[in-house]
Amino acid sequence: MAVTRRTFAGVGVAGAAVAIASPAVAQSAPQVKWRLASSFPKSLDTIWGASPSLAKIVNEMSEGRFNIETFSAGEIVPGLQVLDAVTAGTVECGSSYAGYYVGKNPSIIFDGSLPFGLTPRQQYAWHYFGNGKKFIDEVYDGFNVINIPMGNTGGQMFGWFRKELKTVQDIQGLKMRVAGFGGRLMAKLGAIPQQIAGGDVYAALEKGTIDATEWVGPYDDEKLGFQKVAKYYYIPGVLELEANVGLYINKSAWAALPPNYQAMLRAAASYTLVEMQASYDQKNAKAIARLVANGAQLSVLSPEIVKSLRVALEAVLDEEAAKSEQFKRILEDWRAFRAEQHRWFALADTRAEQATYTTGN
Amino acid sequence: MAVTRRTFAGVGVAGAAVAIASPAVAQSAPQVKWRLASSFPKSLDTIWGASPSLAKIVNEMSEGRFNIETFSAGEIVPGLQVLDAVTAGTVECGSSYAGYYVGKNPSIIFDGSLPFGLTPRQQYAWHYFGNGKKFIDEVYDGFNVINIPMGNTGGQMFGWFRKELKTVQDIQGLKMRVAGFGGRLMAKLGAIPQQIAGGDVYAALEKGTIDATEWVGPYDDEKLGFQKVAKYYYIPGVLELEANVGLYINKSAWAALPPNYQAMLRAAASYTLVEMQASYDQKNAKAIARLVANGAQLSVLSPEIVKSLRVALEAVLDEEAAKSEQFKRILEDWRAFRAEQHRWFALADTRAEQATYTTGN
Repeated sequence: MAVTRRTFAGVGVAGAAVAIASPAVAQSAPQVKWRLASSFPKSLDTIWGASPSLAKIVNEMSEGRFNIETFSAGEIVPGLQVLDAVTAGTVECGSSYAGYYVGKNPSIIFDGSLPFGLTPRQQYAWHYFGNGKKFIDEVYDGFNVINIPMGNTGGQMFGWFRKELKTVQDIQGLKMRVAGFGGRLMAKLGAIPQQIAGGDVYAALEKGTIDATEWVGPYDDEKLGFQKVAKYYYIPGVLELEANVGLYINKSAWAALPPNYQAMLRAAASYTLVEMQASYDQKNAKAIARLVANGAQLSVLSPEIVKSLRVALEAVLDEEAAKSEQFKRILEDWRAFRAEQHRWFALADTRAEQATYTTGN
Repeated sequence: MAVTRRTFAGVGVAGAAVAIASPAVAQSAPQVKWRLASSFPKSLDTIWGASPSLAKIVNEMSEGRFNIETFSAGEIVPGLQVLDAVTAGTVECGSSYAGYYVGKNPSIIFDGSLPFGLTPRQQYAWHYFGNGKKFIDEVYDGFNVINIPMGNTGGQMFGWFRKELKTVQDIQGLKMRVAGFGGRLMAKLGAIPQQIAGGDVYAALEKGTIDATEWVGPYDDEKLGFQKVAKYYYIPGVLELEANVGLYINKSAWAALPPNYQAMLRAAASYTLVEMQASYDQKNAKAIARLVANGAQLSVLSPEIVKSLRVALEAVLDEEAAKSEQFKRILEDWRAFRAEQHRWFALADTRAEQATYTTGN
């Protein structure tokens, strides 16, 4: 209940004076201290960096009253258990990526990074102005979590390969470190997907324990030195046209926040989204030039391989839909939205970009 | 500092108690009332809509203490005079588009929408992680204005034409309603650019006073009914790969804001940026289908015309650089950044999108 002049009038002069100045502070600008667990190590400075950036601007907006302490992967929560920690309320919030949790509920993948899917802009068009948010909220509600987009890597590279991929047959038997739905597609074409932690991928490639890996994009990949042990760097990155990073918030923690702090989180998440995307785009453009100078061999998948991967995607999606009514419902909406967006972008932005690039620089 | 029971008890006197409780409110959460003048009419609901959306989330974050009253084009300031009004402090802030003010200082065009230029993502990569912000701040500083990106239309269409454009010769003598640098390019190819207010374009096309017009994209264009009087709807939209909308803030008004309100504006501007872009992308994809169903004839510029426009752009840029040291400095940085970004996107996101679209939907 709000402390008003009238309710306070009874307690005397000193109280009345405070009653005017203080309630607004006490009620709506309480000291709140949260912990945020990120799925990302500090070495991935751009994707990790969104978390301290979010904390900083929320701190500025609230004048230090709403404090979010940020922890990188493994500091208080293992990187792949951020969703669980937020569900349980071990931390009030986290920064993570839906692809890590497809084992819990495959429908979560519609929150981002489906192969042959939406670009960052298309993903947010679906999320905020299509039915995306409705469906994604439904999925995260099952985890006791509120989810707000807070970043994106942009399109990712197809991956690093020790040998050239000339035909679909070259994928047969290939051991590839590849996460989530991308792995499902590669498996359809005969590859053997591997789950290997980031820090171990280089050694596995060097020893030949694996033949290929995907990671993120040039800026992050460069740090791991893949070009020294798997020189073929393949495009186009059709397995991930975007990778949305979500701010996961425990539902009880969210409900306990005053509405002004909730609004700050919503605005701050878009702030870091714009920032992370811009940062990756600037850094990747420089890193690709360095990688090529240092021996990476940019290579293009054949149209046959690309088409086979697309066929594999649709088959995997249909399989999931057959197993889950929720997946089926979301897929139907997503496919219609995707078709509409792809038709539009193919003649608008993507075409204008292509036309621009062909006129030289 | 929070007023606690203990600090209150220790002081015991009314005046002192207020001294503790009140400064936080008085200093950092003062009642602030601003007016925002938009360059856009309410009929362009998406580009206009960013202004009330910005006001709303700032209001929520500040619990109604920071109030921004929003006015559409012409309500208190004519649409094309928003920059002047913010410069003069007639209004504390505005929402506008750099292209309207190239007559005051051509360098302002680097704030967005240069033909054959940057996409929205590339523009913000340059702004926030290249040298863009440094240069753009320098330009707006000359107008006594702080500028924060707050929206984008995405790539725009090339325009509506009454007759087909088959060769560069067909542009000769063409009267086209086209703003800013796009008009300069068309003029190089022999067209006669016209400045006509939005509400008068339809009639001018119908009467044949003009032969062609560009406006925005399908969603906004559809409202004006151009397909009825100029059926050729041309792509690719190389004249505007993006159109950044800026939040213009009078420098004195900005300086008078407490830092927490400044932070709220920075976050809110990214919030509306994500929102406006997502809204346009969702709406344009639907509108293009309706326009085609209603008679618009989607048409593709020949590579010869596209190339001629590109050559014209570089010539116009060189001309401006010869006239202005500032323009020259910015252009050099912008061109290097553009080349790097275009090389990267041509093999990354744009290529992956193209590859995806060709595998069908």
